[in-house]
Amino acid sequence: MKYGIVAFPSKKIQDLANTYRKRYDPHYALITPHITLKDAFDADESQIGEISKSLEEISARFAPLQIHASRISSFYPTTNAIFFRVEPTPQLESVHTSLKENINLGAPKHVFAPHITIAQKLNASEHDDIFGQLRMVGVDETDVIDRIHLLYQLEDGSWTTYETYKLTGAE
Amino acid sequence: MKYGIVAFPSKKIQDLANTYRKRYDPHYALITPHITLKDAFDADESQIGEISKSLEEISARFAPLQIHASRISSFYPTTNAIFFRVEPTPQLESVHTSLKENINLGAPKHVFAPHITIAQKLNASEHDDIFGQLRMVGVDETDVIDRIHLLYQLEDGSWTTYETYKLTGAE
Repeated sequence: MKYGIVAFPSKKIQDLANTYRKRYDPHYALITPHITLKDAFDADESQIGEISKSLEEISARFAPLQIHASRISSFYPTTNAIFFRVEPTPQLESVHTSLKENINLGAPKHVFAPHITIAQKLNASEHDDIFGQLRMVGVDETDVIDRIHLLYQLEDGSWTTYETYKLTGAE
Repeated sequence: MKYGIVAFPSKKIQDLANTYRKRYDPHYALITPHITLKDAFDADESQIGEISKSLEEISARFAPLQIHASRISSFYPTTNAIFFRVEPTPQLESVHTSLKENINLGAPKHVFAPHITIAQKLNASEHDDIFGQLRMVGVDETDVIDRIHLLYQLEDGSWTTYETYKLTGAE
């Protein structure tokens, strides 16, 4: 089964992201707007108890995530994905590293750049048009996210939450 | 904000339900296949701490839900929804009643008939055609669901999980 670990920002930020995703993101229907903390990885159902235990430990260590979606950016030319850039912080970096080290399944596909995707799978000219527009609109939202989610993927690509973990620590 | 309380069955049952929902359920993209335990209700964000506390108490009281999706049925003529009928049990009835009594927000729209919707918003002739076919195919799946989910709804109608509660009791 395929699993992933994400943080969902406030309803306000999710609603804002969806105004773009509805039009520009073919994954719109598969999952609500999120920050990926650990890329999708394969795990056996027998491993999930141990993974869940690691997540309990990690979430007991970290405080709620302070995030700032500061501008609209693009991963071009790596991919054509457009996203709300979430300012990297030592806290986010540290959560990401802890997840990577403690749940040693699946390799990170990219360097960790926290973000909320709002457009993807665009062709080159669509990307340039849409990014040109959205970059001017921009985004400036702060939020405090007090929990992280372990998700699993169904055969049609959609994601269901397996469990939530409250961030109750001090880091 | 609008909240709801559901149980997600196993990936196997969700995948099976989605083979139908993909074609026949316009809510397909808004939420993965589920059993509604408490209909959508409005609550203020300030009330959510108390609601969550009630859910912790209820989930500590009940054992994992033993379910049996026994046949494909329809709510016609009340609505044109077609669903996997989940056999009512004293346990499911008791969970539903506890949620209703302890979270006194929103009135139940219908008598509690546990089910997993696979088709809805059909016109009368579509309903008759599709129900005629699906009823013959049927369903016969059992599952043990060890957690329930509190969800909230975004402006576009999609649902995000707020929190999961593990069923750790004996009832």
